[in-house]
Amino acid sequence: MAAMKWWGWGLDGVAFEDDDKPGFRPFVQRHLGLDVNRASAAPVRFEDLTIPEPALTVDLRAALEGAVGADHVSTDAHDRVVHARGKSLRDIVLHRRGDLGRLPDVVVRPGTEEDVVAVVAAALEADAVLIAFGGGTSISGSLEPPRDERRTVVSVDLSRLDRVLEIDAPSQLARVQAGVLGPDLERQLNAQGWTMGHFPDSFTHSTLGGWIATRSSGMQSDRYGDIADLTRGLRVVTPAGLLLVRPVPSTSTGPSVREMVLGSEGRIGIITEATVHVRRIAAQRTILGYLFPDWDAGLAAMREIAASEAHPTVTRVSDAPETRFSFATSKASSPLDRLKSAALKAYLRARKGFDVDEMCLSFIGYEGSERHVSAERKAVGRIVARHGGVCVGSGPGALYDQKKFDTPYIRDYLLDRGALGDVSETSAPWSALRPLYDRVMSAAHGAFDEVGVRGYAMCHLSHSYHAGACLYFTFAFPPNAGREPLEQYDVVKSAIQQAFVDGGATLSHHHAVGTEHAQWLEQDISGPGVTLVRALFDGIDPAGNLNPGKIV
Amino acid sequence: MAAMKWWGWGLDGVAFEDDDKPGFRPFVQRHLGLDVNRASAAPVRFEDLTIPEPALTVDLRAALEGAVGADHVSTDAHDRVVHARGKSLRDIVLHRRGDLGRLPDVVVRPGTEEDVVAVVAAALEADAVLIAFGGGTSISGSLEPPRDERRTVVSVDLSRLDRVLEIDAPSQLARVQAGVLGPDLERQLNAQGWTMGHFPDSFTHSTLGGWIATRSSGMQSDRYGDIADLTRGLRVVTPAGLLLVRPVPSTSTGPSVREMVLGSEGRIGIITEATVHVRRIAAQRTILGYLFPDWDAGLAAMREIAASEAHPTVTRVSDAPETRFSFATSKASSPLDRLKSAALKAYLRARKGFDVDEMCLSFIGYEGSERHVSAERKAVGRIVARHGGVCVGSGPGALYDQKKFDTPYIRDYLLDRGALGDVSETSAPWSALRPLYDRVMSAAHGAFDEVGVRGYAMCHLSHSYHAGACLYFTFAFPPNAGREPLEQYDVVKSAIQQAFVDGGATLSHHHAVGTEHAQWLEQDISGPGVTLVRALFDGIDPAGNLNPGKIV
Repeated sequence: MAAMKWWGWGLDGVAFEDDDKPGFRPFVQRHLGLDVNRASAAPVRFEDLTIPEPALTVDLRAALEGAVGADHVSTDAHDRVVHARGKSLRDIVLHRRGDLGRLPDVVVRPGTEEDVVAVVAAALEADAVLIAFGGGTSISGSLEPPRDERRTVVSVDLSRLDRVLEIDAPSQLARVQAGVLGPDLERQLNAQGWTMGHFPDSFTHSTLGGWIATRSSGMQSDRYGDIADLTRGLRVVTPAGLLLVRPVPSTSTGPSVREMVLGSEGRIGIITEATVHVRRIAAQRTILGYLFPDWDAGLAAMREIAASEAHPTVTRVSDAPETRFSFATSKASSPLDRLKSAALKAYLRARKGFDVDEMCLSFIGYEGSERHVSAERKAVGRIVARHGGVCVGSGPGALYDQKKFDTPYIRDYLLDRGALGDVSETSAPWSALRPLYDRVMSAAHGAFDEVGVRGYAMCHLSHSYHAGACLYFTFAFPPNAGREPLEQYDVVKSAIQQAFVDGGATLSHHHAVGTEHAQWLEQDISGPGVTLVRALFDGIDPAGNLNPGKIV
Repeated sequence: MAAMKWWGWGLDGVAFEDDDKPGFRPFVQRHLGLDVNRASAAPVRFEDLTIPEPALTVDLRAALEGAVGADHVSTDAHDRVVHARGKSLRDIVLHRRGDLGRLPDVVVRPGTEEDVVAVVAAALEADAVLIAFGGGTSISGSLEPPRDERRTVVSVDLSRLDRVLEIDAPSQLARVQAGVLGPDLERQLNAQGWTMGHFPDSFTHSTLGGWIATRSSGMQSDRYGDIADLTRGLRVVTPAGLLLVRPVPSTSTGPSVREMVLGSEGRIGIITEATVHVRRIAAQRTILGYLFPDWDAGLAAMREIAASEAHPTVTRVSDAPETRFSFATSKASSPLDRLKSAALKAYLRARKGFDVDEMCLSFIGYEGSERHVSAERKAVGRIVARHGGVCVGSGPGALYDQKKFDTPYIRDYLLDRGALGDVSETSAPWSALRPLYDRVMSAAHGAFDEVGVRGYAMCHLSHSYHAGACLYFTFAFPPNAGREPLEQYDVVKSAIQQAFVDGGATLSHHHAVGTEHAQWLEQDISGPGVTLVRALFDGIDPAGNLNPGKIV
């Protein structure tokens, strides 16, 4: 798999297309006041970038080459630019304008765990900084060296550690190298009849190690579990030696070391391998579409499903603004497009009492034996009906399933046209969700007003748990010409994040802390919580060589 | 609820009775060579104990009285003796012979979180040691002050923090004070139609805070989850201030602070409150008994159930030695006793091909709607049948359900007769279980031989997970007269624990580390794992006032 674009999401040559989506341009025009017909804001050309010489001593280069081989030590300009940041909105905006920040000095690509051990030893010996790099999809600033970092910065690209090493069939466990990308992992598992079932939106470009380091969650995590549930064993190269977490199903050995690695964003060590839950590929798999009369009905149905004896793989419901956006991005004659038909709308109005402007699109997924899927569909169907929802079949769900990894491309499309778009997600108990939603929406629109822009904000419930759910917000606006766009972005993003922590929710459900969310950490986990996290990093990495400045 | 016996398990006046269990005495006689007819080894009398004066300055006493009120500051001898240790075999053996170790100097009973804050402040100000005390059921040495501790030792008894504060019905969450005992917690929840569903063997005498501090697991954890899964929010009084963990369903805020408190055994702070999962009391609840032809068949069936679409609340199967022990402890004409009937044995031999000496007793529990229970029973029944097992109805399961909390009394019965009995439990991946079992059994019997005693060892699988299970071993032997009994115990216990870590398993599935298991910690979680755990404790409690010497 080639590296992603240095200035945006995904592969060169792949982009969000609006030509085949007749409703899209009018929708953006109407809600953002944005002329999308011309791409006005291209990134600077790569050859126009100013790239400083790498600060790499002869000794450290020799040691790194000794560790991984000369072929896998790169000071190539493109390599350094690609490894300088993740894909947060800030990362992309700055990269596009040629502000590259503090570039890593060297990119190394270890091919074995022993290579990683040697790289870490060499870097620590030289008092260099080590930043582990998986797929580079972080949207929380987890990958960027501090701007004022004076030590040599080594980006450790794990992409050569890409193999499923072993499947323990009776235990439903796979031992997997940490640098494997999502599609490659599933391909290797599928070939033997297994799946890990972890499908974050970043799936095509993110890695197992990255998922673990950021506490990722995926589309089917309702049933399969978040990455924290799926990960059992770990191997991590730390300054104190090789950290081994045994792949036992449950243990009582003091505070969980496994959970210290989960979410550690490269600050405890470099994850080389994990032993993760796998399952046999299910006989049946389907995602059904539903329409609810409004957001409250959708939320209530999801809550009732979570408290029921049914366990769908996916429980997702969009608010009305996101539902309207989904309809606007549908292709002509697609299954989604057909939901906009006058006949359906008339039926929903007349027979179901819908206000069709308020209706909410939902996807619920089922997986397992035919008998199981059938029983779950029926059980969920009864709950949906009690909340006034109607099933609209498998067409929209299949479409969602195919297209779910394409969404990040829209951000580059907007940037090309001078608008900013981003996401913020959180989780909270069921009882807090509706007031939280109102608080966040009010904060977002208040921020748009404060900045003086026309903005759009929308939300979906993306994951359900026993005690609550994840709310996933997306927002976009064209910034005012008179002021630094990122300052305007900060006003909006900060308002949303502040509304999360003020509303009893968490700063992020699955996008990690990095630098983007660090300012809310103490409000979320409290002062002593920050003390504990800091103690962990200081204890294992007293000289601060591992991804400094992230989380705390 | 009154305090437990100072010298043994449970309440004064309650003991294991053998009069109504005709098979029990012959069984013990045969397997341990022990004459159980005379209780030969009584504990010393309380009035004969040597109890040193408490080391408590006037200032500290005044500060503690200021914190919780004079009525709740106790230097009473019985109080200090009861709070000196938990209920490990070593604790009980030493207490019975009047070796009380380093008694705490004072027992305080805070009635509010503010009281706890004041107690912690007063103790830190005086550089005293703080040991949180819930129900006192620890069997890992988590409650004993270091023998050479020179600072004043304050035992903080949380028993007055015993209320369910709030039930958030939509979120299926209850906010509960940490000092509540199991039965009191369930009584308060049941009164409003809810249950937490956490039933460890220690249930009658252990507390919510204790479960959290030791990473407890309960009889129904297969379905409800271990305490680590059930616990969402936390309030913990630490030297760095009040630690607050928000009760969100999932979060991505760096290494999980929630998971740092779980299993911390009082070394991070004093847990005052937790927000935990609760569920509506199920319409149906049943535990069925099954017999498998042998241990391998039982293990294989449990593994297949764990990989299936059924989710029973209880999956338990005993090995043949434990099955024989269960039959030996059954009352005449009890449902369990009837399983020993000649007619049933003949049927199992002739029609099912059982070698009845090898057969293994299993309990599988179901809970939910009538429809759900019926579907699960059928699905499990098919798996059981595939492995040659037969269902023996609900009588034995009901009996097990009633009597499951009485088992710890047997240890005192044996001690009264000069024999030692104890437990060790672990978890491992499914593929490792059978070799692990063989390794542990061989180690136990090797240790009996080494010590030169007749011993008995038995095992059950107590909890199933996706990727593995908990194996729970029980052993007993009458020590040789010529040598310190605890030295002989150490040989056997150590052999079993060493077999756990050598076999890829963990030092404990749910009994914590304390001091009893600390010597195996590095072999289990690796050197860097120990570094991380130690960093956590040193970071939050730099002067080492919180339960020093435990875990690391």
